[in-house]
Amino acid sequence: MYEGESRGGSALAGRVRSGERLALARLLTLIENQTQDGLEALAALYPLTGKAHIIGVTGAPGTGKSTLVNELAQAFRRNPPDGRDKATTVAIVAVDPSSPFSGGAILGDRIRMRDLAGDSSVFIRSMASRGALGGLARGTAGVVEALDAAGFDKILIETVGAGQAEVDIARTAQTTLVVAAPGLGDDIQALKAGILEIADILVVNKADLPGAENTQRALRAALEMARVADPMAPSDPDPTHPTPRESTTDSWAVPVLATVATQGEGMEELLEAVVDHRRHLIDSGELVTRERARVRAEMQLLLRDLLAARFLERESDARFEAALERVLTRAVDPRQAVAQLVLETEAGV
Amino acid sequence: MYEGESRGGSALAGRVRSGERLALARLLTLIENQTQDGLEALAALYPLTGKAHIIGVTGAPGTGKSTLVNELAQAFRRNPPDGRDKATTVAIVAVDPSSPFSGGAILGDRIRMRDLAGDSSVFIRSMASRGALGGLARGTAGVVEALDAAGFDKILIETVGAGQAEVDIARTAQTTLVVAAPGLGDDIQALKAGILEIADILVVNKADLPGAENTQRALRAALEMARVADPMAPSDPDPTHPTPRESTTDSWAVPVLATVATQGEGMEELLEAVVDHRRHLIDSGELVTRERARVRAEMQLLLRDLLAARFLERESDARFEAALERVLTRAVDPRQAVAQLVLETEAGV
Repeated sequence: MYEGESRGGSALAGRVRSGERLALARLLTLIENQTQDGLEALAALYPLTGKAHIIGVTGAPGTGKSTLVNELAQAFRRNPPDGRDKATTVAIVAVDPSSPFSGGAILGDRIRMRDLAGDSSVFIRSMASRGALGGLARGTAGVVEALDAAGFDKILIETVGAGQAEVDIARTAQTTLVVAAPGLGDDIQALKAGILEIADILVVNKADLPGAENTQRALRAALEMARVADPMAPSDPDPTHPTPRESTTDSWAVPVLATVATQGEGMEELLEAVVDHRRHLIDSGELVTRERARVRAEMQLLLRDLLAARFLERESDARFEAALERVLTRAVDPRQAVAQLVLETEAGV
Repeated sequence: MYEGESRGGSALAGRVRSGERLALARLLTLIENQTQDGLEALAALYPLTGKAHIIGVTGAPGTGKSTLVNELAQAFRRNPPDGRDKATTVAIVAVDPSSPFSGGAILGDRIRMRDLAGDSSVFIRSMASRGALGGLARGTAGVVEALDAAGFDKILIETVGAGQAEVDIARTAQTTLVVAAPGLGDDIQALKAGILEIADILVVNKADLPGAENTQRALRAALEMARVADPMAPSDPDPTHPTPRESTTDSWAVPVLATVATQGEGMEELLEAVVDHRRHLIDSGELVTRERARVRAEMQLLLRDLLAARFLERESDARFEAALERVLTRAVDPRQAVAQLVLETEAGV
């Protein structure tokens, strides 16, 4: 599979390396479609990764996330990184889980391209996924690796909601922003959605609306509760999902910031918090710990996929179908059927 | 693994079969924790499954889903099934994705138990999951099988939000209700969240609030758009996630109903639509098609888990760790590292 690189994959990697934006766009499509050329190009580019600051931005619909992400990208553009006079380069990956309208993601791109028009250093990519379990998170990982290798300083991953896919994507990021809007913070349901435990920075956007201060207060109280409750919480039983955030509880105090993204208000403070968090990750050694946990989880997921694909390749369809029939007639349960299938195959029956 | 049943598993299955509620509660805990006794009891009970009507209820926070589910349960209790004078039995599975507060699910149970106090035929179970990718959906499948085997006529699965985990859980159900509230329907973002394509019945709850009719209209328009757009949409590339809803587009017209669950308004119409949908599934043969697609997907997921677990058992930790180090030093990318690990193991190196 990886013995030799085809001409297509390595040529594309070379063009991406030399900064061709069209080649990059094509590579991202190949990665999303899991083509051989895409995977080969990604393998060739992998040694160049590890330089970008990867920032996840999540929150409920209606909180103004997209505007906030655009404004944050522009703030980064205005602020060159320390010790460099070259402008910061920014990529935005907007993840739109399973939109029923296939045109949605493309329309989104067009609208947002206009906001950042003329600024060729902000690269925007929308991803729409239809239903692949874990596929969204894995596809995003490859896209982020490609953008990292292509030399972007900051990669912003924007996801809607706080479902499992979003939590997984947030774990791909080094710094995770959770965006709320006034009114949401007072609602116990918002606190139950599992978003607090993934947040490195909390943002109350639309802070010019009534109730913004209440929301900030409620979020601070919820953070305090979570901090107190956490030592009693059960540890994660799934080894593929370490909980890297837990170890930072003592050393990083999650700030609760107020912004009005449509007016650009509060963006400098937000930028500062994002940069501070990156510095904290580096100084504390947490960046290395998180990277190790993330790569371990990614490899375990890839192992699952590869083993299942190879098993189903070797195994005749007829045997899987026969096992399926046994389950449908309720002769065995799904777990027994799969265990028997694997045992028989290993025994060479 | 499944050769002989331990005393614990089969004894528990027997007690669940004879209607012991405490034994059922214990079994559900064992299933959630993936213990051997739990899996054995589930295997023993599996032949009894396949009778319940499994109903998924999903929607954004603040739409009043929990109240709606409670009211729907009570409506079922008042309406005995056709040709039977015995009351309908109802189980509720409330799935709360990764709550940061471990007490959340339990508190939820207590509050809701009070509403349905004295009615021992409504069994309520809350599930909170911390971060296992796909684990929530798989845990839910086992819990639903156990409730089905225990003889409940109606099983209501309530999930928050419209993330991937919720979509997966909805696909476990035979009939899926998507709950909205006034105001949400006007928001293009709510329509983008991928909830329409999983809905068999749309409910605008809190229909006494201003804007309820606009929301119903917007949802009807969105359904119409999705119906027109669907033939052009790409088919699902992931075989573990068939899209059973697509085949029903022509034959089942998704109704958009209005309810005020707190007042019990609209519940009889909702109950009728739920019962109608079940009848449609049976008459059209769709129930069998969906069951086959669901079991196939479940078996493919189980196969992934089992193969990965067996591989990591055989393989020394040292080899996986060495592969991880190669990725962290960027000598190879994660996909190459995993492919090499599998190839070496198969070659017996």
